[in-house]
Amino acid sequence: MASKLLGNYPPELSQEEEHYLLSNLKDWSIAHGLAVRPAPSFIQPSQDPSGVLATTAPVTVFPSLFPGSCFKEGLAIQNAYNKLYSAIARDEAWLQSIVEELLGIDDFVAKLWQTHLTVKKQGYAQDLSLGLFRSDYMVHQDPSEANPTTGLKQVEFNTIASSFGGLSSQVSALHRFLFELDAYPSSTSSIIKTEALQQSRSASLLAKGLATAHKAYVSSSANLPLCVLFIVQDPERNVFDQRHLEYALLAEHRVRSFRLPFGETLSHTRLGSDRTLLYTPPNSPSTTYEVTTVYFRAGYSPDDYPNDDDWSARLHLEKSRAIKCPSILTHLAGSKKVQQVLATPHSPHLKRFLPDEKAAARVLATFAPIYPLDNTQAGKEARKLATDPASASRYVLKPQREGGGNNIYRKAIPPFLENLPETHWPAYVLMEMIEPPPLRNAILRNGELQRGGVICELGVYGVCLWRDASGPEQKGEILESWEAGYLLRTKGDQSEEGGVAAGFGAVDSCCLVDD
Amino acid sequence: MASKLLGNYPPELSQEEEHYLLSNLKDWSIAHGLAVRPAPSFIQPSQDPSGVLATTAPVTVFPSLFPGSCFKEGLAIQNAYNKLYSAIARDEAWLQSIVEELLGIDDFVAKLWQTHLTVKKQGYAQDLSLGLFRSDYMVHQDPSEANPTTGLKQVEFNTIASSFGGLSSQVSALHRFLFELDAYPSSTSSIIKTEALQQSRSASLLAKGLATAHKAYVSSSANLPLCVLFIVQDPERNVFDQRHLEYALLAEHRVRSFRLPFGETLSHTRLGSDRTLLYTPPNSPSTTYEVTTVYFRAGYSPDDYPNDDDWSARLHLEKSRAIKCPSILTHLAGSKKVQQVLATPHSPHLKRFLPDEKAAARVLATFAPIYPLDNTQAGKEARKLATDPASASRYVLKPQREGGGNNIYRKAIPPFLENLPETHWPAYVLMEMIEPPPLRNAILRNGELQRGGVICELGVYGVCLWRDASGPEQKGEILESWEAGYLLRTKGDQSEEGGVAAGFGAVDSCCLVDD
Repeated sequence: MASKLLGNYPPELSQEEEHYLLSNLKDWSIAHGLAVRPAPSFIQPSQDPSGVLATTAPVTVFPSLFPGSCFKEGLAIQNAYNKLYSAIARDEAWLQSIVEELLGIDDFVAKLWQTHLTVKKQGYAQDLSLGLFRSDYMVHQDPSEANPTTGLKQVEFNTIASSFGGLSSQVSALHRFLFELDAYPSSTSSIIKTEALQQSRSASLLAKGLATAHKAYVSSSANLPLCVLFIVQDPERNVFDQRHLEYALLAEHRVRSFRLPFGETLSHTRLGSDRTLLYTPPNSPSTTYEVTTVYFRAGYSPDDYPNDDDWSARLHLEKSRAIKCPSILTHLAGSKKVQQVLATPHSPHLKRFLPDEKAAARVLATFAPIYPLDNTQAGKEARKLATDPASASRYVLKPQREGGGNNIYRKAIPPFLENLPETHWPAYVLMEMIEPPPLRNAILRNGELQRGGVICELGVYGVCLWRDASGPEQKGEILESWEAGYLLRTKGDQSEEGGVAAGFGAVDSCCLVDD
Repeated sequence: MASKLLGNYPPELSQEEEHYLLSNLKDWSIAHGLAVRPAPSFIQPSQDPSGVLATTAPVTVFPSLFPGSCFKEGLAIQNAYNKLYSAIARDEAWLQSIVEELLGIDDFVAKLWQTHLTVKKQGYAQDLSLGLFRSDYMVHQDPSEANPTTGLKQVEFNTIASSFGGLSSQVSALHRFLFELDAYPSSTSSIIKTEALQQSRSASLLAKGLATAHKAYVSSSANLPLCVLFIVQDPERNVFDQRHLEYALLAEHRVRSFRLPFGETLSHTRLGSDRTLLYTPPNSPSTTYEVTTVYFRAGYSPDDYPNDDDWSARLHLEKSRAIKCPSILTHLAGSKKVQQVLATPHSPHLKRFLPDEKAAARVLATFAPIYPLDNTQAGKEARKLATDPASASRYVLKPQREGGGNNIYRKAIPPFLENLPETHWPAYVLMEMIEPPPLRNAILRNGELQRGGVICELGVYGVCLWRDASGPEQKGEILESWEAGYLLRTKGDQSEEGGVAAGFGAVDSCCLVDD
């Protein structure tokens, strides 16, 4: 694919073309909330103490080229992924076996598990669970093949706080708008076409997920007004991304929602007698809402739990009768260790959760081999690969914790492991590097245009509402499941970290090309 | 009206209520393009050289109270105003008599008239004209009456560059959103109600006006792509207001538009053999568009014409076969002198242009008495009123030029006239001060909340497309006419200047109350 096109795409712009393209991009983005609050490095908070300034979210100027077959496959298998991860979340015994391997290593996982056990002792008060998932992929071209085939390889599967669903809808609309304006030079006309530009309906489809849970919730007899509660970080620069979901929830479903900073959970919520989660907005102390659904956009990282109170808050929410998005078990299902055991060659686990052989085969094809660094046979092989500089250069070492960052790449792995006590090695997994095709684009960030080679990551959203097993012999059932649009995140290829929120990448949309 | 409510509205907010209201307001406004580029006094241009920052447009936190009967009357008579002003614009001989009185005094009017005459000599190439009007009013309570009645009094009638149609739609949606969120304290529930909040569809209805002209335009035989041309100032902090019209034009009518800084008109447009206006976008030098409609968002003030070339540009556009919004005659029809002669007591002019007696009476009722400062009988009376400090305190002295600013108020009038040579007095008109009811609100500007007494100005938009007279005995005909939504602009009552763009006011929406 890319080899054919890379030379020409995106084209060089004349000064006038660039001016037209960027002035339209900058105005459209603000007019449509494709925005973030400015970083302190751009505008010092003291200059805008009340936080009214905003700036264009980091975006690519052009839609990135993406193999059409990979894109369609990513969307097509999302329902299978929904099935897989909701089945894992429903299998407490299996999750326990995974978590136990991490207990001595990963305090965060240990704390989450302990929280789950505490609730379990009392009994869960809600058997519905909501997942707003995102499965992240890169396009992989096997470098060892003479005639390399392209396919999707999974980077990670997010079961909590899957972000950018709001901005993703906007950036695909932005690129279509620029195309309709002829802001892209005519030399791109054989590539950027209406049918090639993929619109992402993620904001609307994720909001529909929250609305579906909201409506499936069985109210207490208290006859209180109902709401969805967004548990958020504070401050949140990426607030507009979340706001688009709130606005869609209200406009398209007439469902009220509130934002509650995670750290204020215990101040403003309490549990009713049947563990109904009651929220009293500080602005309206005389009105109490019954919370149908708790949507976590915080609480996914140890940084969100500076105090013991924060763990009390998580326990409090988990105990409640509100539907959690996600529950702690669903949160744990997204840990890298789970991804690793599924992707360990010849693993029996995938079949266990996804008995449909065809679906399982398609899902399996998206796994990059992942090895544990433990004392199993696969672990021993992995240690050999990781400590030899020659073989290590095809791998990345990833901590099992969530949250991005701290990956160790290629030749840096052997010296890193040398300095790490072997008892800590099992906190990491070794994953074959995905080798994405070379691409180029231009990214607008803080008003600066950066051009060059880029790496794209496709995220496919999935919504799944299920009922947990009511007894040890049951497996529960899926009530609703759909693919919910996509995200393309693009970063300069000199950086090997992902995550636009962390300041490394940009939101993007797909311009499909033949492989 | 206000006396009953003023004590309670808007209510004091607790810290929590204010936090909830403002955080929702600040996020919603950016997410929906209710925004401006920050003023240099807020963010120095050197900090954002490429202009990616934006901030919430100055807005009122609450919708302002407005007498329902006045609001409905303002909207109801807009069609009569469309008729009136399009008839004036079609009556060149009458306009000439007005303009001639200003020729020695107002260079700008003289230059506009000269430009018209130059085109007239050659013959106009287009007999369709478009007006996107805005009639501005204040609520007036006659202080001399024991039981004061409220009514609308016209401040001015805009025939060129009527602004804020884009933001007005957004601010009325913002206030409705805040109401739906229960962000307004429950003590307002008898006032802020769904049926009291007035949505303004101005962005869509003004864009429809441009689209109607675009479609009425008869193309040349050149078979070029067609477009609407926005003639703009550069830079333009209020760009999102204009962009909303562009986006509605494209989304709702599939009509292409371009923004052209007024100063670059001659570089990028030319006239074809039949005076078809041809525009070649600098970003796409190989594509030429035929301009159907020229929409002026610049060129209304002498400041827009620093060089002779700028007058050549205005002539060039006027000469062209494109439909002008507005033509020079329409532009001149909006001069204060016209408003003055219409509003001079016992003037015969209104009847001339608006033969429908009922409609004329309703329009007349919105005129505040306006006196010339010339040698007519009315002028002599006015001079007496203006030079006596006692009577002057009920008047405002306004320059006949467009653009706002430089008004002289009440007791400042006598000393001002004392220092002005009498030959210059006819450049001003004396207008009875409108006495608006006392109101209060809070305005958010650059992140700062200012509370206090306010004055509101209602602008009613009107769209009118007409055909000019084809001979001296004809009067032409109106092809389309509609009321096009409204604007409420609110400013602190300590400032006596209007105009949000000039940094003095805020956009607002109407919450109707019984008189």
